[in-house]
Amino acid sequence: MQRPTSATLPLARDLIRAPSVTPDDGGAIGVLATALRGLGFDIVDLPFGEGAARTPNLFARLGRGSPHLCFAGHTDVVPAGEQGWTSGPFDAVIRDGRLYGRGACDMKGGIAAFVGAIDRYLSDGRPLAGSISLLITGDEEGPATHGTVRVLEWMRDHGQIPDFCLVGEPTNPEHLGDVIKIGRRGSLNARIVVPGIQGHVAYPHRADNPVHRLLAILAELTAVPLDDGTEWFEASSLQVTSIDVGNSATNVIPGRAEARLNIRFNDLHTGQGLAEWIASVCRTHAPAAEADVRISGEAFLTQPTAEVDMLVAAIRAVTGREPRLDTGGGTSDARFISRYCPVAEFGLVGASMHKVDEHASVADLEELTDIYASFLERLMR
Amino acid sequence: MQRPTSATLPLARDLIRAPSVTPDDGGAIGVLATALRGLGFDIVDLPFGEGAARTPNLFARLGRGSPHLCFAGHTDVVPAGEQGWTSGPFDAVIRDGRLYGRGACDMKGGIAAFVGAIDRYLSDGRPLAGSISLLITGDEEGPATHGTVRVLEWMRDHGQIPDFCLVGEPTNPEHLGDVIKIGRRGSLNARIVVPGIQGHVAYPHRADNPVHRLLAILAELTAVPLDDGTEWFEASSLQVTSIDVGNSATNVIPGRAEARLNIRFNDLHTGQGLAEWIASVCRTHAPAAEADVRISGEAFLTQPTAEVDMLVAAIRAVTGREPRLDTGGGTSDARFISRYCPVAEFGLVGASMHKVDEHASVADLEELTDIYASFLERLMR
Repeated sequence: MQRPTSATLPLARDLIRAPSVTPDDGGAIGVLATALRGLGFDIVDLPFGEGAARTPNLFARLGRGSPHLCFAGHTDVVPAGEQGWTSGPFDAVIRDGRLYGRGACDMKGGIAAFVGAIDRYLSDGRPLAGSISLLITGDEEGPATHGTVRVLEWMRDHGQIPDFCLVGEPTNPEHLGDVIKIGRRGSLNARIVVPGIQGHVAYPHRADNPVHRLLAILAELTAVPLDDGTEWFEASSLQVTSIDVGNSATNVIPGRAEARLNIRFNDLHTGQGLAEWIASVCRTHAPAAEADVRISGEAFLTQPTAEVDMLVAAIRAVTGREPRLDTGGGTSDARFISRYCPVAEFGLVGASMHKVDEHASVADLEELTDIYASFLERLMR
Repeated sequence: MQRPTSATLPLARDLIRAPSVTPDDGGAIGVLATALRGLGFDIVDLPFGEGAARTPNLFARLGRGSPHLCFAGHTDVVPAGEQGWTSGPFDAVIRDGRLYGRGACDMKGGIAAFVGAIDRYLSDGRPLAGSISLLITGDEEGPATHGTVRVLEWMRDHGQIPDFCLVGEPTNPEHLGDVIKIGRRGSLNARIVVPGIQGHVAYPHRADNPVHRLLAILAELTAVPLDDGTEWFEASSLQVTSIDVGNSATNVIPGRAEARLNIRFNDLHTGQGLAEWIASVCRTHAPAAEADVRISGEAFLTQPTAEVDMLVAAIRAVTGREPRLDTGGGTSDARFISRYCPVAEFGLVGASMHKVDEHASVADLEELTDIYASFLERLMR
């Protein structure tokens, strides 16, 4: 059976051709706004932040009824990075059944599929029972300070909090339909600076080697796993991402050593509790050490809801797969949305995200459009 | 009693005024050669190395008899360094009973005292029973590739290996007569590079964190002291001098981690044995790691000989002090000489070496001359 061609692919290509590497917009928000206006959406531009660093954001809504489904996503992309792209990262070339370009799967393809699904849903001529909105930010890959967080505050202040939010991040590791995310681990970054007393390596008793103190701190922090995971969460993970001393003299004990680490933690922990643990371990081995801990997000979980069941049913109907409900992987803006309403995440296959030759299967783009359309039908019934 | 004024102080000043910052000679070798020729020495210029990087070296010998005592030292000095000298570092100003200048104690003062001692010994009109030589290099503070090592090879090839060698490095921490060095610890530098597989911190199972592997290596290398020291040596010491990853992305597991360490080791170890131990620990925790080990010098010890006893007696007679026989501190060219003959080190007070306002006490210069002269008398008896 020949599937009717959706509006998804042309919109995905137009979005990729707008080079919106964070913090640049590259015209991406405008491309999306034009498409949504064509479908009858009311558009609110919500730039936040100051001057040149202003973050472009968009809130669009169609209808005022209930249920109110919000689709959330971002138009910004990570840099094209190293050389080696087979075709230009912003050329949106189709080759061997795949759409290539930065953002193809993360997540301009997902946004396009959602718009394609609305287009299909509306083109069936049915009246819209509830309402549909889109919360789109131009800063998810960057500091995310003036993006989704600020738009959510605006939505709260303007009575626009939805009944359910679907985030279109690429959640599937291999095949479309593998995974729905119903929560995310929390994340924190710590920077540990250990001062010492510089000296000659031949006279270590006259110096205080900060590298050895730092090694003791990191040994204790990495000695045992933080936990074994829970029903919905995998085990928390601590990764030391960098250690930097920068001492080029082979005969000198340095005066300072620094390490950075990241913890992805499940709901057995809080960022605050982990920060206190890190500070305490530092004090044990290096009383003068400073630990600067930044909590990017707490762990959160949307206990499976009726909406999640509908999403599962839509995926099953279109793909024949039984999606796994999962909380793994990185953080996303869903961590902010979870403070306001139930949220789940489902999008394309993410295997090529952030890599050279990022791509989305053209067939997947159509199937994701079908899934989103099926979900809309089930929800708005 | 007024001590007769030696030739030491004027020669020390002339040597300091020759600005022989490694690798420059600044005329220093020539100043020394002139003084030695005046005493009847045969001089052999032994420049080694290529082109502009040629290292000036000198071998001088007086007499052919036995015992053959060689005095070893270097005319090169470390850079004057930071501003802040009270008088010019190459001005050789005498102030408050001290001779100020780069090289005053390390070790132009020591060379001058030895020449002053020979002058005094010869001026007594006695015939020289044995023979005296000087092994002087212009590259001890630098890479030392074409210095003492090459002169020793030449000496071996020309039948000039002495019965005993006295190195005039500043061995005394506080007072002239504190310390004779009869050995030195060995030293090696290791650079350990651990490759990993880069990845996102949220998916550590898809990456291979080289920092964690490096931490395991360094934890094992630093877990227990290498030894507890020996009769003549303090405990060996391993110092991690730098760890460098250089990963600025907080959400990325890096693809490579690197550490550097230095080991000062006593004669319970060999450089080769330690290198194999490091390689083995690396293999255990990171089979793909590379450990590049450079052995700067093996530990060596001159078991106290009759010559060392004579040096102790000379120091006791002149200063009233009982010198400690020691093997601590950094490396010196004695590590090369020890391969050929027994060697001990005794010179000025080293507290100001390599620092701003390096100096030697004028009284110490005279007393060191007395000590060297007394040693010559005892040895040549």
